[in-house]
Amino acid sequence: MAKVAVVLSGCGVYDGAEINEAVLTLLSLEQQGASYQCFAPDREQMHVINHLTGEPVAGESRNVLVEAARIARGNIKPLTDARVADFDALVVPGGFGAAKNLCDFAVAGAQMTVQADFLALARDFHQAGKPIGLICIAPVMSAAICGEGSRCTIGNEAEVAAAIEAMGGEHLECPVSEARVDTEKKLVTTPAYMLAGSVSEAYAGISDCVKEVLALS
Amino acid sequence: MAKVAVVLSGCGVYDGAEINEAVLTLLSLEQQGASYQCFAPDREQMHVINHLTGEPVAGESRNVLVEAARIARGNIKPLTDARVADFDALVVPGGFGAAKNLCDFAVAGAQMTVQADFLALARDFHQAGKPIGLICIAPVMSAAICGEGSRCTIGNEAEVAAAIEAMGGEHLECPVSEARVDTEKKLVTTPAYMLAGSVSEAYAGISDCVKEVLALS
Repeated sequence: MAKVAVVLSGCGVYDGAEINEAVLTLLSLEQQGASYQCFAPDREQMHVINHLTGEPVAGESRNVLVEAARIARGNIKPLTDARVADFDALVVPGGFGAAKNLCDFAVAGAQMTVQADFLALARDFHQAGKPIGLICIAPVMSAAICGEGSRCTIGNEAEVAAAIEAMGGEHLECPVSEARVDTEKKLVTTPAYMLAGSVSEAYAGISDCVKEVLALS
Repeated sequence: MAKVAVVLSGCGVYDGAEINEAVLTLLSLEQQGASYQCFAPDREQMHVINHLTGEPVAGESRNVLVEAARIARGNIKPLTDARVADFDALVVPGGFGAAKNLCDFAVAGAQMTVQADFLALARDFHQAGKPIGLICIAPVMSAAICGEGSRCTIGNEAEVAAAIEAMGGEHLECPVSEARVDTEKKLVTTPAYMLAGSVSEAYAGISDCVKEVLALS
């Protein structure tokens, strides 16, 4: 049974991990015979968004690990506890949390910085020859993690695709129900809610992403 | 296409809607050809639980509707906007939110009170002959909504089953992968995380619950 580390970036599409993507990742892993452990960075979110209005909430702060624990029903560990030797693969669901709390792509675009603890962990997986699945907006970190020429998809959004190319990646168009595989880099990516109009659309692509990650492990 | 109203009670198993149950309910509805609209009460949660430690957070308050919007990606309306005439069925995922924010079973047990706005809506569905699906701990409200003798399940937990009987319901044992149907009352219930040890176990029962609700609509 493959063991997969899943890194969450909070709880809620606008300031954390996209909830549907996170749950569908865990469901897909179980359905395809893998076990998993969730991790999240133990630090404050970039900010808190009121998901009803879409507006930032002044004066409120939330911790990424504590909020991600809502998705994981408390069964989650600090990112710094993750050891590559304990796992066969890494999967990162999307949501703005991936672009706000794991890196700062949401504000810095192609000039982004990936958070040091997450970057070190993800690079360790890559350098150990273990596959990595990045979902939704998380593939903007492809080249930072897997190096120049990493082939990945965020669907078909021109501006984000251009930023991926500017950072040394290669963007591949991809429909919502599929994933794209860079076999050499052992990198699997899928658009999910970069394109999905429904939960079942996101499920199709995430299920395919998990299938390809497990095939490479 | 059946239209289903889904009532959420926050975002997170210990103080709101159980996230997996909510997402799997929406996924099951889509997969089985139904459309849905999410609703939640626009009021403060009973309290806020740190889902990493399990402890209440002193001095913090969160709004049920605003937090539930995280699950619904912002596409959610206040409970008081729900009109029975617009829908064919009602489904309520569980989590402690159902027992803290829709009623007070978590603190009052069999002496609980169901929140007036939710009770009025759910009773309207019942009196209109439209089916109701209650998941996880939500079936403790069965008799309050559908009347004396309502047959329902929360799995096999003796203390909660006894409370259901004390409130005028009839408890049926049920494995996690199934649902129980009270055909006369058009009430469908499933244990989900009252029993589930995994996301896929919860999915099996919730999918069955949705199937039976749609069959009655």
